[in-house]
Amino acid sequence: MASEEGAVLDAQQQRQSVEWFKYSKRVVLRSILCREDKGLGLVGERVVVGGWVKSRKEKAEKCPAEAQDETWCEALFSRMPLLRSIARILVGNDGAFVPRPAAGPAKSELVVAYLRINDGSCVANLQIVVDSSMSLLGQVMSIGTSILAKGVVEKIPSPGKYVVQLKVEKILHVGIVDIKKYPLAKTRLTLEFIRAYPHLRPRRTMVASVNRIRNVLSYATHMFFQNNGFLYVHMPIITTTDSRVCSKMFHVTTLFSKSDDMEKLIKTSDDEHINLEVVKAAIREKRNRIDELKRSDSNKEALIDAQRDLQKANELALQLEKQQKSAFVKIGEVDFSNDFFSCPAYLSFSMKLHLESYACALSSVYTFGPIFQADESQSPRHLAEMWMVEAELAFAELEDVMNCVEDLLKFICHSVLENCSDDMTFMSKYKDKNCINRLQSIGSSSFARITYAEAVEVLNQVKDQTFETKVDQGLSEEHESYLADKIYRRPVIIYEHPKEVKPFYVHVKDDGKTASTFDIIAPKAGVLVRGSQKEERIDMISKRIEELGLPQEQYDWYLDLRRHGTVKHSGFSLGFEKMIMFATGLDDIRDTIPFPRTHGSANT
Amino acid sequence: MASEEGAVLDAQQQRQSVEWFKYSKRVVLRSILCREDKGLGLVGERVVVGGWVKSRKEKAEKCPAEAQDETWCEALFSRMPLLRSIARILVGNDGAFVPRPAAGPAKSELVVAYLRINDGSCVANLQIVVDSSMSLLGQVMSIGTSILAKGVVEKIPSPGKYVVQLKVEKILHVGIVDIKKYPLAKTRLTLEFIRAYPHLRPRRTMVASVNRIRNVLSYATHMFFQNNGFLYVHMPIITTTDSRVCSKMFHVTTLFSKSDDMEKLIKTSDDEHINLEVVKAAIREKRNRIDELKRSDSNKEALIDAQRDLQKANELALQLEKQQKSAFVKIGEVDFSNDFFSCPAYLSFSMKLHLESYACALSSVYTFGPIFQADESQSPRHLAEMWMVEAELAFAELEDVMNCVEDLLKFICHSVLENCSDDMTFMSKYKDKNCINRLQSIGSSSFARITYAEAVEVLNQVKDQTFETKVDQGLSEEHESYLADKIYRRPVIIYEHPKEVKPFYVHVKDDGKTASTFDIIAPKAGVLVRGSQKEERIDMISKRIEELGLPQEQYDWYLDLRRHGTVKHSGFSLGFEKMIMFATGLDDIRDTIPFPRTHGSANT
Repeated sequence: MASEEGAVLDAQQQRQSVEWFKYSKRVVLRSILCREDKGLGLVGERVVVGGWVKSRKEKAEKCPAEAQDETWCEALFSRMPLLRSIARILVGNDGAFVPRPAAGPAKSELVVAYLRINDGSCVANLQIVVDSSMSLLGQVMSIGTSILAKGVVEKIPSPGKYVVQLKVEKILHVGIVDIKKYPLAKTRLTLEFIRAYPHLRPRRTMVASVNRIRNVLSYATHMFFQNNGFLYVHMPIITTTDSRVCSKMFHVTTLFSKSDDMEKLIKTSDDEHINLEVVKAAIREKRNRIDELKRSDSNKEALIDAQRDLQKANELALQLEKQQKSAFVKIGEVDFSNDFFSCPAYLSFSMKLHLESYACALSSVYTFGPIFQADESQSPRHLAEMWMVEAELAFAELEDVMNCVEDLLKFICHSVLENCSDDMTFMSKYKDKNCINRLQSIGSSSFARITYAEAVEVLNQVKDQTFETKVDQGLSEEHESYLADKIYRRPVIIYEHPKEVKPFYVHVKDDGKTASTFDIIAPKAGVLVRGSQKEERIDMISKRIEELGLPQEQYDWYLDLRRHGTVKHSGFSLGFEKMIMFATGLDDIRDTIPFPRTHGSANT
Repeated sequence: MASEEGAVLDAQQQRQSVEWFKYSKRVVLRSILCREDKGLGLVGERVVVGGWVKSRKEKAEKCPAEAQDETWCEALFSRMPLLRSIARILVGNDGAFVPRPAAGPAKSELVVAYLRINDGSCVANLQIVVDSSMSLLGQVMSIGTSILAKGVVEKIPSPGKYVVQLKVEKILHVGIVDIKKYPLAKTRLTLEFIRAYPHLRPRRTMVASVNRIRNVLSYATHMFFQNNGFLYVHMPIITTTDSRVCSKMFHVTTLFSKSDDMEKLIKTSDDEHINLEVVKAAIREKRNRIDELKRSDSNKEALIDAQRDLQKANELALQLEKQQKSAFVKIGEVDFSNDFFSCPAYLSFSMKLHLESYACALSSVYTFGPIFQADESQSPRHLAEMWMVEAELAFAELEDVMNCVEDLLKFICHSVLENCSDDMTFMSKYKDKNCINRLQSIGSSSFARITYAEAVEVLNQVKDQTFETKVDQGLSEEHESYLADKIYRRPVIIYEHPKEVKPFYVHVKDDGKTASTFDIIAPKAGVLVRGSQKEERIDMISKRIEELGLPQEQYDWYLDLRRHGTVKHSGFSLGFEKMIMFATGLDDIRDTIPFPRTHGSANT
């Protein structure tokens, strides 16, 4: 019993005491503002805090002797809120903050600045109170200024959303803002506007919230897999397996850097080159001939012809000279033997194939890394660089991975609700009022599961909607979104697609027509997950590669997995940015990732 | 009390019961073999297991009636191990396994195969017992074969390293091995040999162990940061910030892929092009002229000249045709306006700069992702694609991050010892007998911390070692390794380097000479971590950029972080593959990563 009492006391002390951040001599705002008591238990404590100014108010206060009155007045207000309302009506402002007079305060007055700062650890801001007795006051007033300050936690006389503030005793560091150049100086700016400043935008509350949600989704993903015995394996970003049939790929090269060493780049041998010297010699001959013709004065037409000839030869020589000044690489026939990897290399647009090789040895594996698509789309659902969660399970069939991914999504959504409640509240208030509901409903019901054929049937019965393409021509993104957004209003698993709409590596069912595949379509995000059972039979998969005209030799290593100890295995890919759209309600995928890369845009 | 008893019972049942893997209809080997009782509690249970054959033994057993004797004999052996030794001497083998007679077993005999299979979940293999009553027996005997089988857990009659085996009742699936083509059919193969088969090598025990250790190190890294309030942010892989001064970078491009759309690639405007049509027209004219000359029969010399002219024009046309078939990109003057991002883009070789922008808003952030170096080194410590852990802390000074990274390393090493003890035992047995000690000693003592100047002094006192370069010319990798391997025999933090050996962004101390930087040198791995306090003063950092002749305009976004609310901030980078070398004792960095990419080599 004694130890139990001790534990209770310890817990109380824990609650009371200031939690200094271990790796910087300050207290993180979250550990003040996100306590259950909103920081009340820390009143009287001396702390150091840091952050960037989010908003400010100034107030000209009377000199200390008179200021007493105001404190008394504030105390009265706080006990009788009605009085404040009356004051507000009479005075015409909120009865607390008097705008600083344009002429500056009288000498006997103390200017007090109420700055709200944020350090990125939570949505909440801490109000810090700085007065003009500190020489730095003029510097700290701009939005975006960084401040490190020491002070005492005190109760806000008239508590509202916040109940404590920091009375600053000493400003330890200021990072001023060049207000003329600071693009985020205004308070109301659209996501679209601040997208142009990816390096500054996490200072905006919504972007910070999205990043905290992204962080929790990432970590929860790892937790889910680790708790279930999966191994995290890092798959290669650079690959020599050309899968351009599936998506446009980026080349990775050092050829452009070898400008000092040009000759090596040129595959064509010297004799294939237009020899400028030959042309120059021809010009000399033509000149001689013209001189000759002039001298002989025999054939005027021949002279004109010859002069025209010379002119053309001169033009050719000029062009050749220009071209030869810089060396050439033949496109479509680039000589990759001098490239870094001695062959064409690409940025991977899926880790799937490589991941399979690890599943065919370690059984249950996952990866979480960037993938790349060089499509020139400007769609709000498209990025050139995205993060992808991919899992592959040996000895697993299609239904196993459907269950797995459904559990994963439930787990990570629950984790966001649990760990990011303030951020989700913020998102639901300022971005998408349904976002919390969406996450909650994921946990409370199973996903709808329908076959592709059933999906077609359901959509064919829709009367009050005209689609851009007909359902019978194959389901498009538009149809799928309609299913999730309008009909089921929750994530839908569509499975067993016609094999033609799926890649070569999927398992084809015994009917020879449908594939063991599924997609998960989610409201707001569209296609969130693609999953499939892989074709484990070497003859079947070789046939598919041939049918589709893929470069067989490039897949030889991949076919080895079927040649040597093949297993049934299945996996899925979760588009991580799509997941963030689903969770936050963001409309544009570029707002889900710190530094978005899209066609024509990568400005850092 | 009742509920407590219930809990004990539950726990016991839990211990006894078979743990089926939720996402495939089988029991993972780890949950049989890595129980405290090594699986004894599961004897009699019917399970399904899967895996790949690691080794096999066959035995011709007498028909069931006689087999009794042998079981009795085995039982005797197991109780009196001396008897087995005697039998071994007399019989000349291990007294248990009799090689299968070349002529095949007699009809009354049952051939029994003892296969050890592994599913990648742990080092341990499960012995499964298959007899010739199963028609598939002939197919399952090769190393590398995959098997999914149902059977009953039974005690091994003469337990050794393992105490249970599986008596197979039904083989559910077999993936055969094409033994002639399977490169890993032999049991003893060097790491170097199997490096040529990255897609198959995780089937080797050591590679699987390294991957399990890598997994635990990865997850522990995330755990450490999450427990300490850091946010995981995904930094871009593709960057337009050219930091080639620090390292050679890869270009990311789509220029090579645009072979269908060649004209766009060419910067020179149309009129600058050699017009093949003009040349062809000239040829026609020349032909006409020759015909004319022939007809007129007036001037033999003129005819010969004209014919020579025609020949040259034909040659030119041929060359032009050849060249125009493929378009050109000018090297050294590549036109990037048609490239995907409309400007040169690179693979990032460090996330540091981008990470700073997030630290300057969210305070404590980390990232964990791939980075790229296009150096042509073939050193066993060099990869073109590596994973890097990077952290950045706002309001933190050099000592703060030194403490942070020391805690991180202790945490992740402890996690490996706790979660990978079998794998570490395996590594210490077959690779590096000191590896467990190394991890243990990390936890038990603080890292040595010496200034760069002190390191020089210590090394200058070394008498019994000659270095390739003199210490006074600056510390090289060789010197640093000597400090960690020979003098301190543990990780050493060397701090305060001369500013000249460090990048432009590090904070320069008041002496104007030394930088607020540190490196951690570890035995076996060399430079494991690089850390620094960043220069927060705009004037100082601009001066450094100018001094080093860097492209100022490319760093403009980075300088914004100093223009607008600058803070003191510090961070570090941990080379993740180096960490694995440190933990496992591997000598070649290519063995630490699933698909190594090095100069001239990326064969998947």
